[in-house]
Amino acid sequence: MKKFQLLGLLFLGTLLNAQNVQSPSKNISVDFKLIENGQPAYSVYYKNKAVVLLSYLGIKLKGGGDLTADFSLDNSSSRAVNETWQPVLGEQANIKNSYNELTVSLSQNKSGRKMNIIFRVFDEGVAFRYDFPKQANLNYFIISDEVSEFNLTGDHTVFWLPGDFDSQEYPYAETKFSEINTDNIDKNNGIALKSIAGKYVVQSPLMMKTAEKLYLNIFEAAVVNYPVMHLDADVQNYVLKSHLVPNAIGDKAYLQTPCVSPWRTVMVSDDARDIVGSKMILNLNEPSKIDDTSWIKPMKYVGVWWEMHVGKSTWDYAGSQNAQNAADGQLKPSGKHGATTENTKRYIDFAAKNGFDGVLVEGWNTGWEDWFGNWKEEVFDFTTPYPDFDLQAVNDYAKLKGIKMIMHNETSGSVANYERHLDRALELMTQYGYPAVKTGYVGRIIPRGEFHDGQTMVNHFNYVARRAADYKVMVNSHESSRPTGYSRTYPNYIAAEAARGTEFNAWSSGNPPMHETILPFTRLLGGPMDYTPGIFEIKMNVYDSKKTEQVHTTLAKQLALYVTMYSPLQMAADLPENYEKYPDAFQFIKDVAVDWQESNYLEAEPGDYLTVVRKDKKSENWFLGAITDENARNTEIKLDFLTPKKKYQAIVYQDGPDADWQKNPKSYTVKTIQVTSKSKIKLHLANGGGTAISFKPIN
Amino acid sequence: MKKFQLLGLLFLGTLLNAQNVQSPSKNISVDFKLIENGQPAYSVYYKNKAVVLLSYLGIKLKGGGDLTADFSLDNSSSRAVNETWQPVLGEQANIKNSYNELTVSLSQNKSGRKMNIIFRVFDEGVAFRYDFPKQANLNYFIISDEVSEFNLTGDHTVFWLPGDFDSQEYPYAETKFSEINTDNIDKNNGIALKSIAGKYVVQSPLMMKTAEKLYLNIFEAAVVNYPVMHLDADVQNYVLKSHLVPNAIGDKAYLQTPCVSPWRTVMVSDDARDIVGSKMILNLNEPSKIDDTSWIKPMKYVGVWWEMHVGKSTWDYAGSQNAQNAADGQLKPSGKHGATTENTKRYIDFAAKNGFDGVLVEGWNTGWEDWFGNWKEEVFDFTTPYPDFDLQAVNDYAKLKGIKMIMHNETSGSVANYERHLDRALELMTQYGYPAVKTGYVGRIIPRGEFHDGQTMVNHFNYVARRAADYKVMVNSHESSRPTGYSRTYPNYIAAEAARGTEFNAWSSGNPPMHETILPFTRLLGGPMDYTPGIFEIKMNVYDSKKTEQVHTTLAKQLALYVTMYSPLQMAADLPENYEKYPDAFQFIKDVAVDWQESNYLEAEPGDYLTVVRKDKKSENWFLGAITDENARNTEIKLDFLTPKKKYQAIVYQDGPDADWQKNPKSYTVKTIQVTSKSKIKLHLANGGGTAISFKPIN
Repeated sequence: MKKFQLLGLLFLGTLLNAQNVQSPSKNISVDFKLIENGQPAYSVYYKNKAVVLLSYLGIKLKGGGDLTADFSLDNSSSRAVNETWQPVLGEQANIKNSYNELTVSLSQNKSGRKMNIIFRVFDEGVAFRYDFPKQANLNYFIISDEVSEFNLTGDHTVFWLPGDFDSQEYPYAETKFSEINTDNIDKNNGIALKSIAGKYVVQSPLMMKTAEKLYLNIFEAAVVNYPVMHLDADVQNYVLKSHLVPNAIGDKAYLQTPCVSPWRTVMVSDDARDIVGSKMILNLNEPSKIDDTSWIKPMKYVGVWWEMHVGKSTWDYAGSQNAQNAADGQLKPSGKHGATTENTKRYIDFAAKNGFDGVLVEGWNTGWEDWFGNWKEEVFDFTTPYPDFDLQAVNDYAKLKGIKMIMHNETSGSVANYERHLDRALELMTQYGYPAVKTGYVGRIIPRGEFHDGQTMVNHFNYVARRAADYKVMVNSHESSRPTGYSRTYPNYIAAEAARGTEFNAWSSGNPPMHETILPFTRLLGGPMDYTPGIFEIKMNVYDSKKTEQVHTTLAKQLALYVTMYSPLQMAADLPENYEKYPDAFQFIKDVAVDWQESNYLEAEPGDYLTVVRKDKKSENWFLGAITDENARNTEIKLDFLTPKKKYQAIVYQDGPDADWQKNPKSYTVKTIQVTSKSKIKLHLANGGGTAISFKPIN
Repeated sequence: MKKFQLLGLLFLGTLLNAQNVQSPSKNISVDFKLIENGQPAYSVYYKNKAVVLLSYLGIKLKGGGDLTADFSLDNSSSRAVNETWQPVLGEQANIKNSYNELTVSLSQNKSGRKMNIIFRVFDEGVAFRYDFPKQANLNYFIISDEVSEFNLTGDHTVFWLPGDFDSQEYPYAETKFSEINTDNIDKNNGIALKSIAGKYVVQSPLMMKTAEKLYLNIFEAAVVNYPVMHLDADVQNYVLKSHLVPNAIGDKAYLQTPCVSPWRTVMVSDDARDIVGSKMILNLNEPSKIDDTSWIKPMKYVGVWWEMHVGKSTWDYAGSQNAQNAADGQLKPSGKHGATTENTKRYIDFAAKNGFDGVLVEGWNTGWEDWFGNWKEEVFDFTTPYPDFDLQAVNDYAKLKGIKMIMHNETSGSVANYERHLDRALELMTQYGYPAVKTGYVGRIIPRGEFHDGQTMVNHFNYVARRAADYKVMVNSHESSRPTGYSRTYPNYIAAEAARGTEFNAWSSGNPPMHETILPFTRLLGGPMDYTPGIFEIKMNVYDSKKTEQVHTTLAKQLALYVTMYSPLQMAADLPENYEKYPDAFQFIKDVAVDWQESNYLEAEPGDYLTVVRKDKKSENWFLGAITDENARNTEIKLDFLTPKKKYQAIVYQDGPDADWQKNPKSYTVKTIQVTSKSKIKLHLANGGGTAISFKPIN
């Protein structure tokens, strides 16, 4: 009887071994099976053609007992989900979450340990995660490696960043898969701290295009209590394999059942717009855990920031960036300190006059003389202002003018120090009424041996978001690990940097014109980016005739970025005096919304161009952003997204006929026209150029 | 001219190369010199005989540029200090600090880097430290190794603990220097986490005795922002060498000039009492940095603690020590939980009735089901009580009864988690009026890869003391690195464990009878120990007939420990119901003082015996404690420390004639006699026994 049961189960197991699940549209399907030795594997098909060939799955454990083979299938279950939810802030007011789910429940024959693999198939892609149920044989465990593979079908075109444990601030390389090699990138790229994991390691999100013109994207979602997944590229066989970021002693993740891994995602479509507009990553995250979200608000802001990047002023009070120069610990002001009470009031005045919500001030607190490159632990205390920055006076003045101040907490990577002081930092914000904090993590991490992308730091970034929520403070983290949708769960985590931002244009080789055409296909899938657009004085020689650095776009493209680079927190990054020189162009930044009812990607090609229109959440206004890479572009846009029968005043901000990001970046025109939903608009984008349009109903 | 100057300097350098400094008594002297290759070296003499032969000094740096050789002597200076200071709490109300100091200023010929070595010679020993002045060529630096040697003169008898990065909770081994070998210790000693650094690595403080009957002690003082120094023993050549505890990536210390190393100390005397009574370690620390110390008070306390060690109750609510047993996260009470409101009130009643100051409660907060051995990060939150512990009710009741509650914060070694929550934990204490916290660090450290004795953790323990001072909370740390006098600088750091305490007697091979005769020569030199004496029910079979564990002393010795083991925080560790069985013996614990006007060590031999008398700081009462090891002892004590012409009532608590720590530990007698300063008292101490006496003036 017993034997019979066992045989029956084995037979059933064999039958069940192959499992399949399809997307609601049926365009995408996933096969799961256990191969001969009981190892889990999957493959992905798009319109009946394989896009991911048979690829292994599994988890390796420290101390043996790998969860990689010897599995039998106990059970499988499936369900369909089709729901709509409302983000607090977002690209659209309603987000559809529609997928078919397959859960395969596995158990290891010898160890008896159980592991489930959950697949969700959306219309634009596939996600899977490991699920470790509560069980006597597996309680606390340490992941030493993850097997997850993505076995590709050919030598695709890839937009890749080197797999670096500490930075994503690279420009993208565009090569064939077989040509991936981190040795070949220009290392003189302005990145201060590089920890490239190897010759053939790249980062996710990884955007690819196949010879058959399929768009393929590999990423992850809901990275919570787990390290970031980089990818080992087998450049001969076109296979990507999970490369988890280690901790100080080489371990990957410390977990306790019941628990889950992050989702591993494969998006695929023959239309690039499906990927750039996808909300799959957000959908794979937990709903908001904040009940009262009334204090989470979008913000447009200016700040004491770009003036330091261009060398006009300094973060530090003594202006030397060397605390050793302080005689007996007494810093001598250089007169170049940016974050003075007076200068801050100037920004507050400018913000109030032009309808901005907030002002960021960097360099307001002591510690900047000695902040970088020394692996110094007690570098900032996050509460002590420099003598020339009067916290009370600044905040009183801001309140008087109706402006919200944005706190700045640079940690210099000394996270142990920040966590020790975090409550005090947040209390200071509460005391003065700061609604948001910009955090920074420039430098090697302390606890020493940890990386920006390890489990410890992922947990830190998430912890800061949660702890800030306790104080009703919004967080904009810079130099964090790149977001994977946690802003759905903690909507106060309103933005992050976590990619190469505008600042690199001020003092390095900068961001090539194609940069902003890729980010929406990669970095932005995980959450808003504080890209800090809006630079009008494109060339740095305006500050110092010897400087050759410049922003690698036209001025008009800088305007378009407010629409193409979604974020509910948008900076007008240039100096007030620069904006005052170009009031007609500046009008767009004043007008543009930052929180949206709806977004439509009209045209998209990674590395080439992007055109998107968005409707303001609070009005009937629409905004269009169109950008191109280093190549000029002409296109015609149908305005059928506008409400039929309504008349709109459209203000078109576009490159001048002679505009060119290198030769003549500030050439632009502004014209006002009337349009309806039946209108079409011809756009001309210069080399490295862009177009921004605001549409306002007439009456 | 230039050449002449150079030659002159070289000549002067040669003359200056040998430097000498003597103790005020002239018994001890130190020679410093630069040997041929410019390497610093020193030797120590006691009464004109070498006790430390020529020994190298120096510091190795990560990335090269070692500060070990190629030095010239720039300058030397000396000064004499003779001062007296008053500790907030202590063994004596006035501490004499008297030494001669020599500073040798060195510079490296090639690198130009400067390093000073400072020697202080006290009457009972020598201290030296490295001093790194502010200089352009040396700003931030990383210590990879410290050269400091102690080149001994022979095969001394050594009382040693294995050099363990995570624990000092070993019983002492007493061997010849040549027989040091950590492989030979009994590893089945109840220590849960062992990180022994090697076969020939021992801990400091290291107590030794030479064939010539000199007492020698090697230790360190003022370990601040630096790892603990263990010692590599060259068992063939009798040389000890600094072995700094590494961090997660093998570095030893991160420093910035100007800075200093801790003091390395060599105490030497032909009278063991000079060492056990020395205040040299305290003297080498910075004076108090707390201005208002009025809230720092000595405490005698009882607690919900020993009952868990003996198995009568549990720390955890569910009683299973396994959170997996919680169905849906809901813990089911086992009924054995110790820290209930009701049980705590019982201890409060007992404390109030018997004149104690405080009550400690362990196991009051959630997390204990799963607290140990899992390297779990988010293990405790330090603020959430179990459902059967009513924080408000307990604290209200304690206030009503005039009792102070002592908070308990076990971290399980998850220091990252504790630092994150520390402010919240301290705020809770402030809210309810807790004057003190007992911290615990049982388990592997998080940040992972760090050790209890590394720089990171030394900084943590000191940080907790400083941060607690901000909240006017006293700290008693358990499983911390052993103190090196920081309680002088932060007197709210009133006690620590950091050695094998009484608890080991409850559930392990225990503490051999000689244990308490060594600790005052080692662990206690760095600061008070919360040894938790006062166990009356010596044998654990009283709780469970199958148990064979016992305290390795007589009952009378348990009383004597209140005097021999100095601490301003003293626990009466046994259960209330046990004290109620022996009210006459318990009277001593009720009477004994914990803060002292004066202390005299009358007899001392490490590993054998100790007799000390102390005068209460607040009264004319004196207390005597005398203990012996496994051998019985008869001695006669002159009472000439008492005030002449005053009559005293002396209550003598001594071993019964048939007492024996193993066979008959609870045999004791109590007698009351009248004495004067001219009296003598004969003491009989049983095997593993002791005597305690209280002296109270009559009118």
